[in-house]
Amino acid sequence: MTAVEAEVEERRGRLHPAVARVREAVRTALAELPRETTVLVACSGGADSLALAAATAFEAPKLGLRAGAVIVDHGLQADSAHTAEIAADQCRSLGLDPVQVRAVEVGTEGGPEGAARTARYDALRDAADEFGADVVLLAHTRDDQAETVLLGLARGSGARSLAGMAPMAGLLRRPLLEVPRSATAAACIASGLRPWHDPHNDDPTYRRVRVRHEVLPILEEALGPGVTEALARTAGLLRADADALDALAADLAETSVRRTGDEVLCDVGMLEAEPAALRTRVLRQAALEAGCRSTDLTAGHVAAVDELVTDWRGQRWIDLPQGVRALRRAGFIVLR
Amino acid sequence: MTAVEAEVEERRGRLHPAVARVREAVRTALAELPRETTVLVACSGGADSLALAAATAFEAPKLGLRAGAVIVDHGLQADSAHTAEIAADQCRSLGLDPVQVRAVEVGTEGGPEGAARTARYDALRDAADEFGADVVLLAHTRDDQAETVLLGLARGSGARSLAGMAPMAGLLRRPLLEVPRSATAAACIASGLRPWHDPHNDDPTYRRVRVRHEVLPILEEALGPGVTEALARTAGLLRADADALDALAADLAETSVRRTGDEVLCDVGMLEAEPAALRTRVLRQAALEAGCRSTDLTAGHVAAVDELVTDWRGQRWIDLPQGVRALRRAGFIVLR
Repeated sequence: MTAVEAEVEERRGRLHPAVARVREAVRTALAELPRETTVLVACSGGADSLALAAATAFEAPKLGLRAGAVIVDHGLQADSAHTAEIAADQCRSLGLDPVQVRAVEVGTEGGPEGAARTARYDALRDAADEFGADVVLLAHTRDDQAETVLLGLARGSGARSLAGMAPMAGLLRRPLLEVPRSATAAACIASGLRPWHDPHNDDPTYRRVRVRHEVLPILEEALGPGVTEALARTAGLLRADADALDALAADLAETSVRRTGDEVLCDVGMLEAEPAALRTRVLRQAALEAGCRSTDLTAGHVAAVDELVTDWRGQRWIDLPQGVRALRRAGFIVLR
Repeated sequence: MTAVEAEVEERRGRLHPAVARVREAVRTALAELPRETTVLVACSGGADSLALAAATAFEAPKLGLRAGAVIVDHGLQADSAHTAEIAADQCRSLGLDPVQVRAVEVGTEGGPEGAARTARYDALRDAADEFGADVVLLAHTRDDQAETVLLGLARGSGARSLAGMAPMAGLLRRPLLEVPRSATAAACIASGLRPWHDPHNDDPTYRRVRVRHEVLPILEEALGPGVTEALARTAGLLRADADALDALAADLAETSVRRTGDEVLCDVGMLEAEPAALRTRVLRQAALEAGCRSTDLTAGHVAAVDELVTDWRGQRWIDLPQGVRALRRAGFIVLR
């Protein structure tokens, strides 16, 4: 189906609702881009990104945008180069241009999922550079978002870890975050596209796969249908909360935190008048500035430092990761 | 074991760690109460509240507090009066005084769990009045808190619904919110107390029971142990966030919202400069003031009203629950 044929169909009202839903989401995400902008779809050949590629190929020209695709070949499976080429051919036949396969080498840092993600995002940035693209579209769906929230729950580190994936971050955009995975699958079928099924998606050594196939079905059974949607909505609300509080905490840090030599000083008088949500954010940021690694600094550490502010009883000092110490001295929390 | 015997044991270092943990939590919760205050333990005879009763009987006198107990007989099971009397006897033999059984009638509003909760909390307030108690202690544990967070996830209405139960709310205090259920059970065994097992706790028609027995075990399996703790910690962090944002939104509403006749007016110019987390809280509050019921007003409704502020394209009006309408007029969002 060419773009013109599809538009004729749409006008006749014969468009499949799943196709319409994916297109609408893409149209909304692209609506405010200046004409002539180049957007690239990150496409694996799976149902989500193939549906995204098809919708982008349809919508972008109507908005005066140039739309291409990048297929990242992670080299993790024997036939990955072949799979990537099939996806590239599908993108080309959808009318996307340029279409490029980029082979990457996946390291080991951050575990198998983390290392693959790092390599993939680097490749997408490189491709955007090469083609002068301002936007890269990722095909994460509402179900992916719900899984991300559940994975974040296990960290227990508050709003930011439950806020899921951002709809926009730098040059990345995720137009399908409110579209269910069932719609991308249905859109592919309705459009005669043949998605690739990644065997990794069934491999229970991945925590995300266990969340998808074991946790979410049980949650839906116990709490009723609509849990996936509720989780995704939660992510959006908590992202807004975290953004607001982070911005307010940054303002507060401007006036209450300063650096002298190798010490970071936080003004107790200014902090103790503020709510816990802001105090702990400022103290956390100060601890990072003093040398703590964010992956090692827990909510428990920050709470202990906060007690130096709110519950001062002459404690000695608090030991933080990376050898940083927090103590109270002459009206300041000193981190060094 | 009398209080004196127990203290001797504690000094000898032979105190069971679970008993020590429950007592410490109670001591912390009671530490800042003025001497002579009367505290009442809400006791069902189950392991959590029996361990709480024992710890309170031990700690309260050392802090100069008077400690009693209330047993609410919900009348939902044939032998509920007998069960309540056994719990009352146990409380008396722990040294609590006064100890009272209060029989209540459970209505139907809010479903079986909601109606029982309403009747119970009313009875606890009445008992506090009768005995001049300033504090009622509830035995909710860290596991209860984790379950509450998961039940809140299904609502998808943001930080407040994930913030779980408050450690303090009016005269209620929940000293055991960071103590695992395994500790209250172990404390009962170590102290020779025989808790009552509520058959409702195994009845899968209750969503909470399904969360406890089906969802949490699967979550722990998929995400690793520590999920319960992470969920409870999440609740605390999100409660702090929600408190801070609610307070800031209330400040903002003071200047940006006013009531005239049967209309509630929100100043667009003032709201549009604020982050979404504050805007949506102010608009939600304004909609409640205009007559929407909080149980009917969804995040989706509020988002639609927010679009009148941030994405004004001459929309007509937004229909809200209870016949309330929101529209934009001359620089104001008008709700009526």
